[in-house]
Order: sequence, then C-alpha cells, then structure tokens
Amino acid sequence: MIDNDTMLLMIPGPVKTHPRIYAAMARPLIGHRTPEFKKLYNETLELFKKLIDTKNDAFIFTGSSTSAMDSAIANLVQPGDKVLNVIQGKFSERWQDITNAYGGDSIVLNIEWGKALKEEPLVEMFDKNKDIKFVTICHNETSTGIINPAEKIGKVVRDYEKILIVDGVTSVGGDYVYPDKWNFDILVTGSQKCLGIPPGLGFIMVGPRAWEIINERESIHSYYVNLPLYKQWFAERGDTPFTPSVPLIIAQNVSLKMMFEEGIDNRMKRHRRMAKATRVGAKALGLQLFAEEEYASNTVTSIKVPPKINSKELINSMKELGILIAGGQGNLRGNIIRIAHMNVVQEKDILVTFSALETALNKLGFDFKPGSGVAAIEQEFSQTS
Amino acid sequence: MIDNDTMLLMIPGPVKTHPRIYAAMARPLIGHRTPEFKKLYNETLELFKKLIDTKNDAFIFTGSSTSAMDSAIANLVQPGDKVLNVIQGKFSERWQDITNAYGGDSIVLNIEWGKALKEEPLVEMFDKNKDIKFVTICHNETSTGIINPAEKIGKVVRDYEKILIVDGVTSVGGDYVYPDKWNFDILVTGSQKCLGIPPGLGFIMVGPRAWEIINERESIHSYYVNLPLYKQWFAERGDTPFTPSVPLIIAQNVSLKMMFEEGIDNRMKRHRRMAKATRVGAKALGLQLFAEEEYASNTVTSIKVPPKINSKELINSMKELGILIAGGQGNLRGNIIRIAHMNVVQEKDILVTFSALETALNKLGFDFKPGSGVAAIEQEFSQTS
Repeated sequence: MIDNDTMLLMIPGPVKTHPRIYAAMARPLIGHRTPEFKKLYNETLELFKKLIDTKNDAFIFTGSSTSAMDSAIANLVQPGDKVLNVIQGKFSERWQDITNAYGGDSIVLNIEWGKALKEEPLVEMFDKNKDIKFVTICHNETSTGIINPAEKIGKVVRDYEKILIVDGVTSVGGDYVYPDKWNFDILVTGSQKCLGIPPGLGFIMVGPRAWEIINERESIHSYYVNLPLYKQWFAERGDTPFTPSVPLIIAQNVSLKMMFEEGIDNRMKRHRRMAKATRVGAKALGLQLFAEEEYASNTVTSIKVPPKINSKELINSMKELGILIAGGQGNLRGNIIRIAHMNVVQEKDILVTFSALETALNKLGFDFKPGSGVAAIEQEFSQTS
Repeated sequence: MIDNDTMLLMIPGPVKTHPRIYAAMARPLIGHRTPEFKKLYNETLELFKKLIDTKNDAFIFTGSSTSAMDSAIANLVQPGDKVLNVIQGKFSERWQDITNAYGGDSIVLNIEWGKALKEEPLVEMFDKNKDIKFVTICHNETSTGIINPAEKIGKVVRDYEKILIVDGVTSVGGDYVYPDKWNFDILVTGSQKCLGIPPGLGFIMVGPRAWEIINERESIHSYYVNLPLYKQWFAERGDTPFTPSVPLIIAQNVSLKMMFEEGIDNRMKRHRRMAKATRVGAKALGLQLFAEEEYASNTVTSIKVPPKINSKELINSMKELGILIAGGQGNLRGNIIRIAHMNVVQEKDILVTFSALETALNKLGFDFKPGSGVAAIEQEFSQTS
C-alpha cells in the first residue's frame, strides 16, 4: 500500500521536512504590510545572509528556485552579451535556456556528466574567448550527484574578470557555500532543498560587481524579478514589492533558526556523514557510484542501475515500502537512481532507505548478499560521529 | 494587547482563511513529479476553470499575483506595441509599470479614483488612437473599492478588435467573472484573495486571440513566466515546468472544493450581502462611502476618513481590538479606510468589525450615535438572507 502521507522523501526536493515546519505552515496568516511581518522578513533575510556569510544584498522571491535564476539572467544579461554556460547535467542546462530566453550569446562548456568542473577547461575557454562576460555554473548538480570545487572556480573566474553566476539550489544549507570568500557575484537558491521548507521561495544574493552592471543598464525587461525594484523597495519599506507567501516566510524563519540551533558546522558534518554512509552502503551492495567520487555531492548520491534491473521497477518497489527516491533525468533516465540526503535526514533514514533498497533489489533478482549494505552503513555509523 | 494569531483579517489579502485551509497547509509534502501530484494539480486547474466557466487554457505560477500580471505583458507586448493602460487606482497603475518594463508604448486613460470605467471614454480613446493593440484593466480595484462593468467593457474592446488583459485578482472567487462570455483575452488572479488560501500562487487564463499573438512572436524575453513553456510542459507532462509550491496547491484544491460545496451562486450572494451590510453600516454611522455606489465592489468597501480623525490611529485602535482593516494607498493614504469582506467572511465578522469601528471612533472623539452602525447592519441582516 502506498501511503503518501508517511512517505519518506529521499528525493532531491521536496525534502524530508521537520514537524516544526509543518506546524509553522499552519500558523495564522498575518498581513504582509504589518510591522510584525517586516520584522519577521528582515530577521529571515539576516539569518539567510549569516548562513552564507555574506555582506551583499539578498532578496527573497515568492517563486520556485527558477524565479531566482530567471532574475539573475534577466537583470544582468543583455542581448548579445557573451555568456559561458557550463553544462554538466540537467540543472546547469537550465542556465543556457534562460540565457537564450533573454537573447544572451551562449557559448557552452560541456563537462562529461558525473564529472566535476575543474579550473583547466575554464581557463582554456577564457583564453579562447576573450569577450566572455558572464559564467554560469551549477554548484551542486543533483542530476548527476557532483559538487564542483566552487572556491577554485570562483578564483579563476575573478582572475579573468568575468561575472560568476552560481546556482546553489541544492548546496546552500547542506554544504558550505561562502559566496563572498569564493568570489560569487550572484548566488541563487530555493527554499525546498537544504533550506528545509516546502517549495515556493527563491533566494538571490547580489554582489557589488553585479550591481555595477545592473545599474549601468538603460532598461531591464523584467518586472516580477526586477532587482533594482526589490532593492529600492527594501531600502524604503523593509519588505517586498509584491505580496510574499506569508506562511513560507514564517516557515523559513523557523527552519533557519533550527539550523543555527543545530550549529552550521554540525549540520554540514551531518550531511557529509549521511553522504559517506550512502556511498559506503551502495558499494557494499556491489553497486557502482555514478559521480566522480572525489567530487561526490554531500546532498545527493547517484548510483548506477545494475544491468538487467529496471530503474522504474526499483523505484516503485521502494515506494511501496514507503521510501521515495529519484531516477535519472535527461540522458541519465533509466541509468541511475538518486538518493538525496538533505535537510533533516539522519542515520535512521539512511538505514531504512538501504533496508528498503536491499528488499527491492532482492525482489528484482539482483545478485548480492542481503544485509551487506545495511551492515556496512551500521559499521560506518558506529565508527564515526 | 495585540495578538496576531487571533487577528481577524478584514484587509484585502491575506484574507480570513478557513481552518480546513490551515490543516491543508500542514499536510505532508508529496513529490511534485509523482502521479499523485499530477492528479491533484489537474483537478485544481479544472476546478479553477469551472469557477470562471472557461474553455481556455489556464496555468498556475508559483508566485504572487504579480507574477501572472508580469506573464501577461512579457508574453504579449513587444517593444513599441501600443498599450492602453486604464488607470483608476493603485493596482491598475501596476499594468503601466509592467508595460513600461517590457518596452510597450503605454498610453493612459485616467479615470477619477473611486469612479468606475465606463464604455464612453474607452470608445473615445479607440477612435483617437487607431493603433492601440492591447487594453489593460483592473476588474475590481481594491485601492478605491470599485468594480468595473467588465462585460460591457469586454464588448467594446472586442468590437474594436483590441486584446483585453484583465486583472481579476480581487474579483475571481468573490464575484462573478466570466472571461469567455465577457471577451477577456487574458485574465489573471492570485490565491490569497477570494480564492481563499495564503499568498503564493498566480493564475493566468489565456484565450485563443492571445495565443495567436504569442505564437507569432519570434522570441519572448521571459523564462519563469513563459507561457509557451508552461503550455508545452502541461501538454506533454501534465504538470508545471518548475517546482510548484506543493502545500499551496494542496490548499487551493481544498479551497476550490469548499467553494463548490457552498455553491458558487451562494458564495457570490454572500459576498454581496456582506458588502451591502458594510455600506449600510458605514452610512448609519454618518460616514461617507468613497466609491461610486452603483459600482461599489463586493469584496472591499472604501470609506472616507472623517475630518479630524487620523486614519492611522483609527486603524491601530481597531487592531488593538483584534480587527485588521486597511488604509488608503498612493494618493488616498490617510483619506480612506478599506474594509475587505472576502472569502469566508460572514455576518458575525461584519458585526464585530463595526462594533470595533464604533468603539475606535468613539475613542477618537468622532460624533455619532454609538450602536447605530451595528443596529443598521443587524436590521439589514434580519431582513434579507
């Protein structure tokens, strides 16, 4: 029997969400032009900025994470501007789609899916294409399960004096992301991943070099995600130009506070611990990891589907056991499964996910030693903390 | 003592919300790419389309109502296109801002604030400006409290073969709105007014004449609210291109079902009854209505602030009594108060609002017969049903 109400969400969003967040979502609505709401909104923004240790401006859109990505390109890229879109999976592809939508001149640096972006191919592109103005990357590419060495990339991009636009949708809150230190000019993220609440809020951080470009533009063909409008409104009124999703702001406030209660280092360590255990478990079952292991994501793990196993059947089988995991996207459809370990995921969630994975693999006739995955994870958890 | 948790929201959004909606907001999250979510999303869209009796396409954005307004202009208006922006309050002004953002050639028809838009000034504008291509109106202008005769306006605009873009943010769900019958080409609305749930969803209906224009465009400088993308995605996959706010869709589904449980006619009659009682009560207190009474909105009533009374003090005084009403916006700041009667507002809410209003007016030294407003409303309610 599939019971969605008790389903453990081990997908890369929406994520397993804490009961305190559900309680916050059901809090009575307050008017969004009241002093009470302004206080709440400001505190939430400050907590977010503290999380990513930034002194730059940040804004919250009522929208999917994509609204923040849209904002980045709409406000910065003018028709004809050369934009280097680094593509290494489904989500980094989106930057190219948006660049094209706004008439940017997209040139693509393709990185093999499952591999991280290193400095060398970037340097090569910059040397060959002197007129590149912007670079888009996806920090943590959930479609393949890799995390890019963002600090090193940031340094190269800054050395070459390009503007770096970073999708941190699935890294912010689940791994270290320090845009100021790492030379990001724009960082976007969303509420429904490691920020721990339901979908519906997009976040954008805007650095001074990005503002310079925005401020020099004669016009920006964008209204809903127009950054100068958000900046002016916030400066003058301390809230948002358009009605924000009040319950989501209330919930985000609670979730950010919970992060600081746990401690940011503890939270990041926990994510790394869950990721490591997932990799250990997969290997113990004789499964192959898809992503380059040195750059394996700490928020989602991609695992190759063994020959003769149908990924859809595997996922459905786990769903019947109450655990939702994800399949592959784009070219990877049918070839990988993805187990996310984001937000409040803890030891018992990894253990039960692997118990269910073993049960499903067994049912589908995969040849392995039952219990071996869970045993390896137990071992891993008992030896580390 | 101000207790926001028990505050009665008599403001034009967020509105008084039913406990069933709060319960829905706290429902466990489900994955947005699951068959369960697709079913829920499709059903919600169908209920919305049934509410406005349309055969046209409709889409739901994760965003404020403004995201849907943004979409209308971004997808339809090309730089240089002549757009007639009818301005008669704060919300109709927004259409001009968006038109300007996308390079449209805005010409303005100013209607005195508090008055409705009639057919004659439109005809005059059309006769003088043959090259007008689009017309934007706000159906129910909450900043002044009027509702425009949309059916008549729709007929004129269609006769002149212009494209009519309608903001129905505060009419849909609280008053009759029939876009197909009334010749609307685009209708936008949002979740947090008479659709009865928290802010965070924008709705857009797109008629065939709007699609013709969209389909002929070479490019659309918009990504997050790109209509062809939403249309294609829905046709191919039955859901949304970007992560929707799952709890809001769940809540919207519940709220739409509640509307059909009450009966659409009953719902509209109830809104009219509450609006009439509000006007009766205000007049009994010796207060003057701001909006042209023949076109007074059924979802919000605007009342002139009497001389020597400070509107801020009046509003704060009511807030202390647990009732939140709104002040004026733009030019009307300080001059009017606005009492909204949207969504699940019922007799007792109007009665208590006026009891509080009388108490506050008393405190501020306004000369009137205490109890006279409430008495008139009781009379009104007891004579009608």
